[in-house]
Amino acid sequence: MNISALLTSAGINIAVCLILISLYSILRKQPSNVTVYFGRRIASGRSRRTDPFCFERFVPSPSWIVRAWVTTEEDLLAIGGMDAVVFLRSLICSRISICWFCDFSPFFCFVSLCLLPYSIRIFAIAAIIGCFVVLPVNYYGQKRQYQEFPLESLEVFTILNVQEGSKWLWTHCLTLYILTCSACVLLYFEYRSIAKMRLAHITESPPNPSHFTVLVRAIPWSAEDTYSNSVKKFFMKYHESSYLFHQMVHRAGTIQKLMSDAEKMYMVLKAASVERNCTPGLMQCGPCTDHTNSFKVLSSELETVKEERADFVDMDLVGRKKECAAAFVFFKTRYAAVVAAQVLQSANPMLWVTDSAPEPHDVYWSNLWIPYGQLWIRKIATLMAAIAFMLVFLIPVTFVQGLTQLEQLQQTFPFLKGILKKKFVSQLATGYLPSVILILFLYTVPPTMMLFSVVEGSISRSGRKKSACCKILYFTIWNVFFVNVFTGSVIRQLRVFSSVKDIPAQLANAVPAQASFFLTYVLSSGWASLACEVMQLFPLLCNLIKRVILRIKSDSPDAALSFPYHTEIPRLLLFGFLGFTCSILVPLILPFLLVYFVLAYFVYRNQILNVYVSKYESGGLFWPIVHNTTIFSLVFMQIIALGVFGLRRSPVSSGFTIPLVICTLLFNEYCRQRFHPIFKNHAAEVLIDMDRRDEESGKMEEIYQQLHSAYYQFTLTPHDLFKSGSSSNHEGGDSVRDPENVKPGEEHSQVNGSIKIV
Amino acid sequence: MNISALLTSAGINIAVCLILISLYSILRKQPSNVTVYFGRRIASGRSRRTDPFCFERFVPSPSWIVRAWVTTEEDLLAIGGMDAVVFLRSLICSRISICWFCDFSPFFCFVSLCLLPYSIRIFAIAAIIGCFVVLPVNYYGQKRQYQEFPLESLEVFTILNVQEGSKWLWTHCLTLYILTCSACVLLYFEYRSIAKMRLAHITESPPNPSHFTVLVRAIPWSAEDTYSNSVKKFFMKYHESSYLFHQMVHRAGTIQKLMSDAEKMYMVLKAASVERNCTPGLMQCGPCTDHTNSFKVLSSELETVKEERADFVDMDLVGRKKECAAAFVFFKTRYAAVVAAQVLQSANPMLWVTDSAPEPHDVYWSNLWIPYGQLWIRKIATLMAAIAFMLVFLIPVTFVQGLTQLEQLQQTFPFLKGILKKKFVSQLATGYLPSVILILFLYTVPPTMMLFSVVEGSISRSGRKKSACCKILYFTIWNVFFVNVFTGSVIRQLRVFSSVKDIPAQLANAVPAQASFFLTYVLSSGWASLACEVMQLFPLLCNLIKRVILRIKSDSPDAALSFPYHTEIPRLLLFGFLGFTCSILVPLILPFLLVYFVLAYFVYRNQILNVYVSKYESGGLFWPIVHNTTIFSLVFMQIIALGVFGLRRSPVSSGFTIPLVICTLLFNEYCRQRFHPIFKNHAAEVLIDMDRRDEESGKMEEIYQQLHSAYYQFTLTPHDLFKSGSSSNHEGGDSVRDPENVKPGEEHSQVNGSIKIV
Repeated sequence: MNISALLTSAGINIAVCLILISLYSILRKQPSNVTVYFGRRIASGRSRRTDPFCFERFVPSPSWIVRAWVTTEEDLLAIGGMDAVVFLRSLICSRISICWFCDFSPFFCFVSLCLLPYSIRIFAIAAIIGCFVVLPVNYYGQKRQYQEFPLESLEVFTILNVQEGSKWLWTHCLTLYILTCSACVLLYFEYRSIAKMRLAHITESPPNPSHFTVLVRAIPWSAEDTYSNSVKKFFMKYHESSYLFHQMVHRAGTIQKLMSDAEKMYMVLKAASVERNCTPGLMQCGPCTDHTNSFKVLSSELETVKEERADFVDMDLVGRKKECAAAFVFFKTRYAAVVAAQVLQSANPMLWVTDSAPEPHDVYWSNLWIPYGQLWIRKIATLMAAIAFMLVFLIPVTFVQGLTQLEQLQQTFPFLKGILKKKFVSQLATGYLPSVILILFLYTVPPTMMLFSVVEGSISRSGRKKSACCKILYFTIWNVFFVNVFTGSVIRQLRVFSSVKDIPAQLANAVPAQASFFLTYVLSSGWASLACEVMQLFPLLCNLIKRVILRIKSDSPDAALSFPYHTEIPRLLLFGFLGFTCSILVPLILPFLLVYFVLAYFVYRNQILNVYVSKYESGGLFWPIVHNTTIFSLVFMQIIALGVFGLRRSPVSSGFTIPLVICTLLFNEYCRQRFHPIFKNHAAEVLIDMDRRDEESGKMEEIYQQLHSAYYQFTLTPHDLFKSGSSSNHEGGDSVRDPENVKPGEEHSQVNGSIKIV
Repeated sequence: MNISALLTSAGINIAVCLILISLYSILRKQPSNVTVYFGRRIASGRSRRTDPFCFERFVPSPSWIVRAWVTTEEDLLAIGGMDAVVFLRSLICSRISICWFCDFSPFFCFVSLCLLPYSIRIFAIAAIIGCFVVLPVNYYGQKRQYQEFPLESLEVFTILNVQEGSKWLWTHCLTLYILTCSACVLLYFEYRSIAKMRLAHITESPPNPSHFTVLVRAIPWSAEDTYSNSVKKFFMKYHESSYLFHQMVHRAGTIQKLMSDAEKMYMVLKAASVERNCTPGLMQCGPCTDHTNSFKVLSSELETVKEERADFVDMDLVGRKKECAAAFVFFKTRYAAVVAAQVLQSANPMLWVTDSAPEPHDVYWSNLWIPYGQLWIRKIATLMAAIAFMLVFLIPVTFVQGLTQLEQLQQTFPFLKGILKKKFVSQLATGYLPSVILILFLYTVPPTMMLFSVVEGSISRSGRKKSACCKILYFTIWNVFFVNVFTGSVIRQLRVFSSVKDIPAQLANAVPAQASFFLTYVLSSGWASLACEVMQLFPLLCNLIKRVILRIKSDSPDAALSFPYHTEIPRLLLFGFLGFTCSILVPLILPFLLVYFVLAYFVYRNQILNVYVSKYESGGLFWPIVHNTTIFSLVFMQIIALGVFGLRRSPVSSGFTIPLVICTLLFNEYCRQRFHPIFKNHAAEVLIDMDRRDEESGKMEEIYQQLHSAYYQFTLTPHDLFKSGSSSNHEGGDSVRDPENVKPGEEHSQVNGSIKIV
């Protein structure tokens, strides 16, 4: 691949982006698409719906970018909520002022808010150094015949072009130092400010029911008592002074529902068939060798039928059967709840397992019935499944990599020879097709990983997203980076990883060789995906089908989407990883990445302003993932640099790199010591202060009242309401509530309409 | 090495053992050695000192073995305390009865108590299968000329002798299954019973001050307040209802003492010199350009001198300076203490760090002054140092391995040729010398690792021993096993580990090739070290020097030793590891190992009965190390077996081994989930029950009284007592108390004599 191919690729991408963005700027002005592009505004009841039909509506305009940029803080505060303000300020202003804003913000976009500006800053530094220091050194690294610029291979811009033992390698080493130091300094301040924000979020936000609540699982089964009574007894005994009340969790998984339905059906059928068999059985007069015996069998059978029916009718027993071994327990103070959640409760660690409860909207009800004893094996099983999935995924990736080596393709499919000889087609095939195919395959990953996270048994939606986020992150880094580097270039198998010592050197060779792939990946996956994100292709299509084919005209959105952290954070982190890894090897990639991050900043800003609704908060739990990945990227960059300096025979540079690796790891350890506990647990000091404040202001009673209706597992359909009105049967309210599909405005009415199950 | 060489080696070792043991049985009867061999009895005031001079004293007898075996439980209970009983019962009787005994036992030897019988059981099974199934299969594995038995090479007993693709390999696979299953079943019951014992130990033992106490570190420095006041304010504010009182920790490290001495000296000298300078300065009449200024300087200097002196004299300020940022905080209930220890206290995780306090005798006072912020870096530094030490240690090991290859030695030192040609010498050199040299080098390891653990900053003696135990364990497994396997045989460098995939196959080749080394290692290091252990060579030598050269005749022991867990557990685990690893490769090793474990059982039983004193208890914290190492050994055995089956081309056996590996790992994970939390934290349920019991019986007041004198950092020498009598200066009592050097009888008087620092 040479410069002209790169430019072709860049051109196509820029064109695609421009077209999509123009299209977006037109589409967003159409009143029919308002549900797609202004879901958030509709949800908060702030959208203008009266657009006159005019010519302007069909002219593309950059007004949304301008608006995203121009809107003042006060306007943003009024229109888009505090989150947008926080998002903005994290870029422009100093950190301290953010904390002030946090005090009364809904505190959404906690992580992406800092991730993007952080990426922009660090890659601005990297791009400047890369383009003005490393790139010239690489380009003039060897005495050779300089070709016309557009025909220059991309290789001459990589470190492969630097002579062995060149004295100029110190520039690479220096770049390494500057990059690492600035990345670490920025990272430290980010971590510190996010930790502060998290604390401010906890203390300043309105009273959160989850702070008073503990989720208890693995309640031991006892023959005499219901689960509910066991919970009451246990907490009255050991947490008498602080225990308030509790609320059982009922079985509600889909499988569970199917099973209980099947069970009921079976019992009804069995009862009916036994009845049918019984009557003639008792009245039969045929030859009967052992009459008494057959009578006994029948009568005992009758008894069981009676018992079963009694079971079936007795609502208490049915209620008991549906309760599962989990409950939300409410405490009088936040401190008592956090103590109950963190201290080991029982001498058998597999019983009375306590956890901090997730926020009410964050609870993933379908997973709460899972027996605690299954969780560890589920975790291992999903881990294995995820790894297997990663390995199966190698097949498309290998195929994609085949495309970059056209000769092989021509050998395999001889009929393609004619087409591939045309210059434009071959440039397209090498420069653009591989990454498009890869992206299409990658689209299957998030749903799969989300499924794994569900099976794993997360109790909260944010936990599920976090788990999926980690899995997708490992997956993308493995499949996009490692597999491409190693299958495409030197070695075709996993054999590379069997030789630990040579990995740095092999990476140092393989990464620059794959420069063209990474460049096109950034262009296609990065830029184009942003354009797709802003276009909201899938909702747009749905909307179109609904309007044109189904002719539904309702304006209310089916489901206001929540921000897809689990796909966006891994993507941003992957690009960060690519950026760091390639920073000294292929500095040409850095400007493209910087453009990507800036574009991403505008796009996500717009999306958060207009499209996504924040339904639950993770409270910044994503940040440690970001931090760890960044540190990993830095160390990986340094290890590759070690390989490079080894290959280029520059022992001095190697010698200087080793302390850098150690310092980076020490820095990481320090951050882990200093900040990570805040993200794992709540501090006693903070909670006690909050409790005191609320007690003094007399708010506690009000909070206790709220607690009663905070966690509601079932919602009522009108049909259920009728049923529950006519009989006191609780089974009707089985439709599990899914906050992902509920508008914020709807919530309150549902709270009042829900059956309280206490 | 052939069978005759092995027999030579075994013969030498048996002879050495017999001589040493006979010597022991004579020496132990000499009244002059009573302090060496009956330290424990003297300490508990139960030794008989009047032995008449008779002939019997100089005749070796196996009486101690008989006695160790014969003594009834009741006698053991009366003589040796409950620990010996527990030790015995863990072998003979069922598990449940142990728990009953635990109820009123001092609960010492918690781990070795179960480790040894466990090892005996599992290796009895292994030895039987190994000798009667695997050994014949190996021996008759290949058609070849059978030599005279004593001249058979050891190799024909290893798996190397089995033909490729042999059908008999299923016996090895079956052995693997039987061994793994029996090991896991035994391990599970051990873990369960030990967990029960730990709980019983906590609940049934007399009130333990450490349960009421929390160690607070990283108390923030404030300009207005002393540390003591800060602690009081903080805990009065946040733990008002349960806070009792606290006790500051004072600086007492050796370096600290030297530094403060130097500081004092400096201040005295400075004061003196300033005084000397001052007087003439004020009275000088020479040419003085700026008189006022110089006067100012002098006067301000005088003021600082005055201030310094005031500081020096003001005892409050001196007291404040000596306090360090750590304190023991006492709570009203056990539950409150455990809550304070487990919950994150401050929003800054580097401040107000709480930990469960160690037992009073277990506190390692010299490490408490270490600033908390240093700990993480100390841990990393010691880890690095330990790894460096492990690598440096390669040098002697490589040399030792050179000895097993005599040709090389002859080439290097040609003058040895004559001697080495003699058969006996060569057998001695190959069979015995290498492991003796290795053992001698290994003796330097425990003190070094102990030093690392001290530098690491453990707050308790048991924690220090546990940390040293882990380090020594990794060290021995690495240096005895891996380095010997790989340096001695195929590959001379660490290069092996650069190729991950081939490791199983290489191990499968290398381990049987080193069979002779492992056999002699078990003989020399195992058997002989037990004989040395029972002989107590070093104390015996000290005693001899004291009596013969220094002519001291006092009978009281300098220091009754505590059981050296940190050296004995790694040794036992290493032999277990060797046993598992070699079980199917070199089954010849198993009988020797079994003999070792049985002998160890008697020896340690005798030592615990007579020699060692238990001063502090870890409460079974060593067991998870044992468990994990055993699981590691099992998995390692299976991986090597995979390599073997791969080399011998038996895909069926390989296929059957893989599920075994997975099941073993799942079993480990289950045990970790089920039992490990009990070893990390105390359960709320248990502690609250204990608190209630004590409250109801009215014992609490008594316990609070005990708490006041429980933790005492300084002891008084008579000199100090005089000083503290004449002035109220607390500095005198600087000699830090070391429970390792204190007799149990002494303790009480010291408690009363100590200065209470509250």
